[in-house]
Formats: sequence, structure tokens, C-alpha cells
Amino acid sequence: MTEFLRVVTADQFVELLRRFPRHPSEMVGLDASLNRISAADVTSPEDLPPSARSTVDGYAVRAEDTFGASESIPALLEVTDSVEMGKMPQFSVRPGEAAPIPTGGFLPAGADAVVMVEYTNRAGGTAVEVTRPLTVRSNVLEQAEDVKAGESVIQRGRVVRPQEIGILAALGITHIRVYRRTRVAVVSTGDEIIPIEGKPAPGQIRDANAYSISALVRASGAEPIRFDIVPDQPEMLRETLSAALDQADVVALSGGSSVGARDLMVDVVGALPDAEILAHGVAIRPGKPTLLASRNEKAILGLPGHPVSALLIAQAFLNPFLRYLQGGILEKGPLGERLKAVLPTSIHSVTGLEEYVRVRLE
Amino acid sequence: MTEFLRVVTADQFVELLRRFPRHPSEMVGLDASLNRISAADVTSPEDLPPSARSTVDGYAVRAEDTFGASESIPALLEVTDSVEMGKMPQFSVRPGEAAPIPTGGFLPAGADAVVMVEYTNRAGGTAVEVTRPLTVRSNVLEQAEDVKAGESVIQRGRVVRPQEIGILAALGITHIRVYRRTRVAVVSTGDEIIPIEGKPAPGQIRDANAYSISALVRASGAEPIRFDIVPDQPEMLRETLSAALDQADVVALSGGSSVGARDLMVDVVGALPDAEILAHGVAIRPGKPTLLASRNEKAILGLPGHPVSALLIAQAFLNPFLRYLQGGILEKGPLGERLKAVLPTSIHSVTGLEEYVRVRLE
Repeated sequence: MTEFLRVVTADQFVELLRRFPRHPSEMVGLDASLNRISAADVTSPEDLPPSARSTVDGYAVRAEDTFGASESIPALLEVTDSVEMGKMPQFSVRPGEAAPIPTGGFLPAGADAVVMVEYTNRAGGTAVEVTRPLTVRSNVLEQAEDVKAGESVIQRGRVVRPQEIGILAALGITHIRVYRRTRVAVVSTGDEIIPIEGKPAPGQIRDANAYSISALVRASGAEPIRFDIVPDQPEMLRETLSAALDQADVVALSGGSSVGARDLMVDVVGALPDAEILAHGVAIRPGKPTLLASRNEKAILGLPGHPVSALLIAQAFLNPFLRYLQGGILEKGPLGERLKAVLPTSIHSVTGLEEYVRVRLE
Repeated sequence: MTEFLRVVTADQFVELLRRFPRHPSEMVGLDASLNRISAADVTSPEDLPPSARSTVDGYAVRAEDTFGASESIPALLEVTDSVEMGKMPQFSVRPGEAAPIPTGGFLPAGADAVVMVEYTNRAGGTAVEVTRPLTVRSNVLEQAEDVKAGESVIQRGRVVRPQEIGILAALGITHIRVYRRTRVAVVSTGDEIIPIEGKPAPGQIRDANAYSISALVRASGAEPIRFDIVPDQPEMLRETLSAALDQADVVALSGGSSVGARDLMVDVVGALPDAEILAHGVAIRPGKPTLLASRNEKAILGLPGHPVSALLIAQAFLNPFLRYLQGGILEKGPLGERLKAVLPTSIHSVTGLEEYVRVRLE
């Protein structure tokens, strides 16, 4: 019962996780790419917009024709053909001319600014008065202002967000290479565990881990596959582990927190063909019983049985591990925002253990 | 062409959005509840754990029996029955006794602390030496330490996270009442818009908005329903809008940025039976053409046609609106972390317009 365990530090544990290879990539349509991680650098094959467009309703002009224009001394220009939506104007704006243009319309050759309709008066016939001076590029979305040809649209390792999806769509790139999603087998073990629908007899507890760990897996962008509760019996554990390794990339096993149950877990995992135990425990609290093993580049991760500890350890290690396998960076601890705050009470910790403590921000 | 528009401020626009009722609630299983918003206050019907449990492998004892114990002068205790996982011990620990207990085992009556096996020596026969003193509750997870009966598990309006799912599962609460998800019809309009698979002729642009807005809708926890591109023709727009309002709670319409196209949009929306135009424009940049209308408590939201502007306005207004309809708070502007940063160049803005500008953090 007092067998010495090969315990690693939290940092060593993360280095062991890094030994597992990232998943291969796959092509997916843009709709399936949200929040996935890009497996390729994508650069733009063209300028967006491909040519200058107006950002207002008004007249496309040469800015210099409006220099010095005012309410009292307007510039008088000759109205040409109108720019139509969906067509590239086939005419030029020459000095002294103004082409009616709608918002979003492409500028005719020669024009370098657009005067808003509010600052014009139709002067009768084919003339228009411009009552404000314009500078070059006023009210114009320039060619390539959104994206330049050759510019990076998304880099390998970056999360695909709505803005990248929009740019890819605008460029006609309908599919993108992303890392495959991780399939995670979620397995709870322990003679004391019962399904959540049941009423626990004294001494039993409900299988909270199956649900919280599955939810965390989903929140990590991966796919949980939930298995039935396994009692502390070697043959049943072996069968479940084999099935889990067949179906999944990672097995998240909770329970086995007592020495007896952990020994059983280690024995069964160690006896699987081609399996290698990488760590028997991690010097963290809660979570010392955490087990890590590999088999054919698939990982078996042991989490504590106590639901609060299991989720905490999963947030600190499983979530970053899943992000990593799916193309992201591997960083220890819960991902996302990090804050400094003051604790209302002191926490005594044990030398050599890294502690994870739940707090409520106020 | 210079028709005066009823333009509202960004704050007034948000108040108009607030007029729409939140969706009704529905019961969902725990697996479907992740990231949904709770529509009910849930309190715990019981204590978790229901009784004190050990956090280590060792012996359940009365702490006072170990006072003064040391390596040189150990406390000598009589070993009783062992605690088994999954069963509530049917015996008590009396003064001078120690009960072998595994991690996670429930404490027998009488015991108030657990000594780790590392600090014990079996002294032969039924005696055990304890070589360290314990305080009351050492290595014990107390009754109700995780959750107390009557304590709030989740409050109405809060996002369901893996930790709440875990607690609900541990309590045997298999379903939770959450707000229904919003169905959003995503409709792009404009004679210049072509499907993203196509090669735009000069003057045409690809339908980026259909993809970026759908992705944003999905990222907001809602369900996008994408419609075919509608050219600037009243009858086709009317038909699409009717179909969209039948199938969805919100219609996100992009395009109509020119006065002509906007007038068409306003005319068609205004002519729908029971429709009410709430705003013709919002004093923001980009986005002045934004339209808001209601019909039988469903919203029609007009976004700019230019893809960058459309997504920006959707992030500032559509995303918070969807969070609100689905039970969250309604706050103007992109949700999430807010940062202060210094701009490398000054931005000139127009009095009376609220501006949204894309930046890259460095």
C-alpha cells in the first residue's frame, strides 16, 4: 500500500503531453471552420476590394475640381453617365465632370473622390453644384484597403473567427485546412459511482465527472464519447480501455484516487499491449493520483475521482492538451484571461506541490 | 434621393432592441446545456458530499488521539474494520481506534480526521502507530464542503459552464431550464452580390456577409438559416423576407447601403403586414444605413453591405442582441474583454457619430 510512485512536476507533466503528435489536418467548408485552428498559412490571391468603391451616395469627381468650393462659390460640374451597382463603369470622369454613384459603386477611371449628395445641388440640365471641397480619396474605399494581394489572411495555428471566415468568403476561398478535432473517451471508474439518474445509497456518489468532463471537452472544441461507469474490476476496466482506445484519440479516465484503485488502473493500463506509463502522479494539488500513459500515440489521462478536483485538473491540463492536439499552443493552466487578485484568507501550501484553488472574483 | 431619414443614436438603438421580448425557456438535458443561459434559479436539494469523505489513503481517527504524536513517541491505536468504497461504514471509531480508509471513502461515525498512510506504521497484530499529530478535519472533505443544501447552483441569466453541469449532475439534476436559441435568417441583398463559389465579373463582389454573419450568429449561440442572395427587386425581397420571418426570430439583412437600395428595403419592410419601422438609420460609423423593424415581436435588422462594416456592426449590435434574446444582458458593443490601448495615429471623427474602428493589438 505504500509503494513509491514516480511523481513528476506539473511542468514535466506538460512536457510529457507535448510528446504526443498533433492531429493531422483536414479540409473543411467555411461553415464548419468556426473556432477550429488553421493548419495552413493562407494569403490573399487578390485585392479586396479589387478596385476603389464609394462609401456614400453622391458624385464621383476629380478632387482638384472641387478645391475652394463653398456654399457661396460652388464648383459647377457636368453630370456624366451614372455608376450602376454590379457593373464596372465603362466610362471615365474627365476634368469638370461628375458621375452619380451609389454607396458601394465602383469608381470610374479618372475619379479620385466622391462628394456626398448632401453637399450638391442639381443646377438644372446636366450640371451639378458642389458646395464643399474634397481631398483625394474622400469617401472612397480604396483598392486593396480591406485586403492586399499576397497579404496573410490567416496563419497556421490561429483560431478561425467570423472575421477570417468573412475574408475567406470574400476571396472565394470556400474551404480551409484545419486540424482534425480530438475524440475523447470519457470514462468514470469506481465501485462507489452510480449513474446521475439514480438515487445514491449511503456511501455512493453520482457520476458528475462524465458530464462535467464531457462539457469541458466540448468547450475545448473536441468531441466527447461517454462510456459506462466501470467498477474497480481489472477485466472490465481492460475491456473498456481497449474499446475507448479504438474509438478515441485521448482517454480521460476519472477515479482511481485510492492507492488500491490507482494500482489497479496502473496495472491494467501497463498491461495493455504497446502501452507505456509516462507518469504515476503529478506533484499538484488536487490531483496527485493523476496518471499519464501512451499507446500508439494515443493518450490515457487519469483524473482524480472527486468531481471538483477532476474538473480543476481537467481545466489545467486536459483543456490545454486538447487545444494543442487540435493545432493550438500548449500552455499549462486554464486558458484565457489571467487576472491578479487579492485573497481574503491565506492559503497554506506544501513545498514541492503546485496548487490549484477555485476562487470567486468579487 | 435626399429624403430625410429618422436616425437614432447608438444608445437609442439599443433601447429599441430591448423592446423585443426574450425567448421563452425550454428544458434541456445537461449535455445540451453547455453555454446556454439558465432561465431558472436552481438551488441544491442536498449536501455535497452528503457526509464527510477522506482525501487521502490512511486511517480515520479521532484527532485528539494523535495530539503530541511524533516519530519518537508515536500514538498507538487499535485497527478496526476497513472503510469500503461505495458503502457507508456501519461501525464507529471509538477513542483509541483507527479505521483503514481509502481516498474518497466516507468517514465512520466518531472519526474527525484521517492520518495519511505515510505517517503510520503497522505495529504488528491489530495495532498501528501514528507518527504525526492531526488537527480536527485534517485530510477530510467535510459534509457539504462542495455544495450546501439550499445553496444556489446556478442563477437565472447565467451561462451554463462545465462546472455548473458537474454540480447539477452530482445532484442528480439531469435537465435544466434554459432560454431557447434564436433562429437568425441571414439574407444578403444587392445586384452586385454573387455566391462565393463564383468568379465576380468587374463590378461584382462575393457574398462574404452570408458566411461571416452566419459564423457570428453561431458564435453567439444562435442558429443561422442562410437564404439565397436577393437582387434589388421589391417582389423578390418581399418574398424572401416573408419566408425568413416565417422560419426565424431575427432577420439579419445586409446590403441596401445606397439610398436607392435602402429606400427599396424600407419600402418593402414597411409594406409587410403588421411591420413597424423603428429606425431608418443609426448615428454610428460604419453603419448609418442600419435599419431596424419589428413584426409580431420578430426583428429585422439591416446591416451595411460592405463586408468589413457589416461584421463590425453585427459584432456591436447583433451579437449583444442575440445574447439578450437568449437570456443574457444587453450591452452595446462587442462583448467580452475590454482593453485600454494607445492608437499609433489619431482618428478624426464626426460630431454626433459613434465610431467603431478595427484595431490590431500589439
